[in-house]
Amino acid sequence: MIGIFDSGVGGMTVARAVEKLLPSCPQIYFGDLARTPYGSKSPETILRYSVQNMEFLLSRGAKLIIIACNSAASVASDELGKLFDVPIFEVISPAVRRAVAATGTGRIGVIGTRATIKTGAYDKEIAGLDSDKRVFSQACPLLVPLVEEGWLNKRETKMILRRYLYPLKLKQVDTLVLGCTHYPLLKKLIQPRIGSRVTIIDSSEEVAFALKKFLDANRQLKNSLSSEGENKYYVSDVTETAKSIAKRIFGREIELLSA
Amino acid sequence: MIGIFDSGVGGMTVARAVEKLLPSCPQIYFGDLARTPYGSKSPETILRYSVQNMEFLLSRGAKLIIIACNSAASVASDELGKLFDVPIFEVISPAVRRAVAATGTGRIGVIGTRATIKTGAYDKEIAGLDSDKRVFSQACPLLVPLVEEGWLNKRETKMILRRYLYPLKLKQVDTLVLGCTHYPLLKKLIQPRIGSRVTIIDSSEEVAFALKKFLDANRQLKNSLSSEGENKYYVSDVTETAKSIAKRIFGREIELLSA
Repeated sequence: MIGIFDSGVGGMTVARAVEKLLPSCPQIYFGDLARTPYGSKSPETILRYSVQNMEFLLSRGAKLIIIACNSAASVASDELGKLFDVPIFEVISPAVRRAVAATGTGRIGVIGTRATIKTGAYDKEIAGLDSDKRVFSQACPLLVPLVEEGWLNKRETKMILRRYLYPLKLKQVDTLVLGCTHYPLLKKLIQPRIGSRVTIIDSSEEVAFALKKFLDANRQLKNSLSSEGENKYYVSDVTETAKSIAKRIFGREIELLSA
Repeated sequence: MIGIFDSGVGGMTVARAVEKLLPSCPQIYFGDLARTPYGSKSPETILRYSVQNMEFLLSRGAKLIIIACNSAASVASDELGKLFDVPIFEVISPAVRRAVAATGTGRIGVIGTRATIKTGAYDKEIAGLDSDKRVFSQACPLLVPLVEEGWLNKRETKMILRRYLYPLKLKQVDTLVLGCTHYPLLKKLIQPRIGSRVTIIDSSEEVAFALKKFLDANRQLKNSLSSEGENKYYVSDVTETAKSIAKRIFGREIELLSA
């Protein structure tokens, strides 16, 4: 199975994108709702939680892991790679590669939680690929609560987005990376506020593309992933809000199993 | 020592109110920042965390506990009273008694997190005291993130408050209970939006008054609390945001100890 973890249900945007591209590969998802969100917590705490999440997924038969949480990817993915001997994908690198390829002016914007932005993970990754690119990043800590409230089309959400995006607009970025798995749900509000000509990179979609490419080149692993039953979605706390976000992401009822 | 716990640093509004009224009684505070917030989590999870928090405080010498988190108070205080043999105060009952005494029209509004409002704890407490009172409650899940961002005077915060308070205004409440320890920081914005003649009840202040009254009647306990060193503030995760909220609440630098 493909193991996917996130601090909550936002990472289901990744699960959904993977399901679309790799419908024959069953998934096991873990959302750490009992300790969500990660974005406001310290790197040490996020790493500790990530190790526990991976152990859970591997114990349930995952043979490959996607870190579907930008906060965890930015502070913990190197360390997790050292600790565990399975292929690990995360949401940052594929989005960065795509952004570097997409930009014309070399001015890339990144939005994410406070934890993600503070690590500078996107800046470092982009600089590692092409040191000529300029990265402008902006922490947007209120967007996750707004999405979790379902305020996807409220005036306040639009104003808050405008406030967050304004500095990036001033910097004339031509590419914007959505560095949090909740943000794809706000894509339609973000596009007009950052500018219609700005390319928006959805990290959930990009990691799904990267995984498909990898599995197409590793047929044996892909075949072994394909023969193992149905998708399972575990959470460390079951709440009504989570069920409704899951439904919104998948467009169908999702059974959340208690872990 | 007086033990105080909260899901985060919001409960420091209680610690501050207690410090003002009982300056000679040292406190030990625990803020569960590694798992904050509680307001969006299930009752089972909140109870489990509350038990752990009480065990921590008692192991460090607390002889009396204040549950400074409305979410924990509303779902866990009865159970905690059965499990632990120490005096337990919580933020709901004192605020309810005050609200019932203060209202003239008998129409009381309550605002809080989703978890607090969903339990109906305030409704039940008020009905238990006086079944003639009418309670109108409103979950305000975005207020905690707004306070934690320090957006205490932003236009968006005012708009969101207006949206949340409007239904209570329509119901013509004459008393409004701030059923979350973060909300006192928004009191100045709440008053004009709910109406200048509405009495605002601050649950942090009310629990401090109740505790003082109890200790004045239990001199022996008070004396035994008074002789034990200085205030200590523990958190399960140390973050910059927490430090800045703590400073805003106390008006001075607060050393956050890692627990």
